[in-house]
Amino acid sequence: MADFFSGVPQREPSQGLGFAVNPIERRSEEREETALATALGDPSARFYLFHAGDALTRGTEALFTLAEAEALHADLGAAVLLGWLGPAPRLAAPVDAPPPDGIAATSLRTIATEGALAAADIGGLAQAQGLLNWHGRHRFCSNCGAPTRMARGGYRRDCPSCSGEHFPRTDPVVIMLTVDGDNALLGRQPRFPAGFYSCLAGFLEPGETIEDAVRRETYEESHIRVGRVRYWASQPWPFPTSLMIGCHAEALDRDIERDAAELEDCRWFPRAEVLTMLARTHPAGLATPPAMAIAHQLIAAWAG
Amino acid sequence: MADFFSGVPQREPSQGLGFAVNPIERRSEEREETALATALGDPSARFYLFHAGDALTRGTEALFTLAEAEALHADLGAAVLLGWLGPAPRLAAPVDAPPPDGIAATSLRTIATEGALAAADIGGLAQAQGLLNWHGRHRFCSNCGAPTRMARGGYRRDCPSCSGEHFPRTDPVVIMLTVDGDNALLGRQPRFPAGFYSCLAGFLEPGETIEDAVRRETYEESHIRVGRVRYWASQPWPFPTSLMIGCHAEALDRDIERDAAELEDCRWFPRAEVLTMLARTHPAGLATPPAMAIAHQLIAAWAG
Repeated sequence: MADFFSGVPQREPSQGLGFAVNPIERRSEEREETALATALGDPSARFYLFHAGDALTRGTEALFTLAEAEALHADLGAAVLLGWLGPAPRLAAPVDAPPPDGIAATSLRTIATEGALAAADIGGLAQAQGLLNWHGRHRFCSNCGAPTRMARGGYRRDCPSCSGEHFPRTDPVVIMLTVDGDNALLGRQPRFPAGFYSCLAGFLEPGETIEDAVRRETYEESHIRVGRVRYWASQPWPFPTSLMIGCHAEALDRDIERDAAELEDCRWFPRAEVLTMLARTHPAGLATPPAMAIAHQLIAAWAG
Repeated sequence: MADFFSGVPQREPSQGLGFAVNPIERRSEEREETALATALGDPSARFYLFHAGDALTRGTEALFTLAEAEALHADLGAAVLLGWLGPAPRLAAPVDAPPPDGIAATSLRTIATEGALAAADIGGLAQAQGLLNWHGRHRFCSNCGAPTRMARGGYRRDCPSCSGEHFPRTDPVVIMLTVDGDNALLGRQPRFPAGFYSCLAGFLEPGETIEDAVRRETYEESHIRVGRVRYWASQPWPFPTSLMIGCHAEALDRDIERDAAELEDCRWFPRAEVLTMLARTHPAGLATPPAMAIAHQLIAAWAG
């Protein structure tokens, strides 16, 4: 019979996105209680470090040894064990002190946009930031209010008071390019850089399929009804703990009624104009998000 | 040019799954602070009610009026506003007292498996249960430990102490049928009913794409490496707050090494045998999960 996976490319779209290439072996079954201490004592361990939410880098390097992490005043009591590369543990830790000369502190968005680091480090940093962001907002038990403590190398928090177990949170977000033939629906949030237009997006809610969330968010923001929905790719988005689920959506309407609370503009853009926005050659300076963002690649996959 | 959505069926697979058909209009932009009180005072309001996690039903009806909810001792102070059907609000509330004769309290799994209720009510009940489950486990602020209070009709909890805003949690789970030509990889967890085999599955972690989570979970549970991954459908799974993301996955290996901590068996099943498991005609009584479950339909989509 025919190949059941015919039509599925060997290189999936997700692998072309920022934060999505991550060779760290998580080995979730090896996160016993001693794993973190063992990893901290392993001379092959390497650390991703963050100061005030920004990643520390030295040139194009983002990994530090234990001795370097200690010299930078990393809070090793808050370190998490991301996983391993072969035998070598990969960890992450926050750093309270600002970094000295020669060490930069840069936002992950900027790092991914500039692309000066290896894609694998950008992916590792995203895993680290998503997990550290979660710990930062979950020091207390949501069930009873008591302080919780880290377990399983950082992949769980336990409540000694009510025995609740809490796992890292990942918030699914639908992001969709809604198209009507040769036109695509793009919107502009007030916080966007000047001239930027992007896909509509929003958090998936309890009791919703991905496809229904695409339809609801598109309708709420633009009053365009959506028919067919096709999943395209996904992207970790650690701001603070999201998973972007990228889809193409088929418009059933033409007349936009913008949600003014969410968007300061929302329009149909013809394919030819979209191509200039992707290429950053638009005569009026309009542009899509950078290539590392799933919005850019969702748009390019349709326009190209 | 060719239809960009060619090959995408008008009736998407998600719509054939339990909990996935839900006509409630969420209108998230209309969740201002007075919306819940207004809905509670609307004579057209209807309620889904839950006692100890089980849904209350009367025959094949799952919706109750305000007067009926009050007679059943519903805790209206914990009511949430799911949305509307046209002008009529749809709400949900927990009930402390066991129901009287004539009212059944049944688990949503059973309701979805038996299919005696309308699909739209099963979807509405899933939205309700997912949201109520979240409130039940999130009465305190995970950021500072203080008690939180419901806002926006139940779609947010606010912390008066640290001003933190908390949104309903939805946990993405990958569930995949891994196939090698005419054979499919199925496993058995110790908690499954006798004879049941199902798809492998697991929670997506921070910093992971859907596709990488499929590969990691399959490898961790079976030591089978996965190549191509194709998204197929999604299903709300309010036990307690999951979103099942169903994929087909291409096996690159044949030799299984089972994770004994997770699975009591894991095998390749030939297509012909799988068809008897779906149809519940297997000579040894082996079976897949029921038709309402995405595992069943993922398997059927491959085997059929």
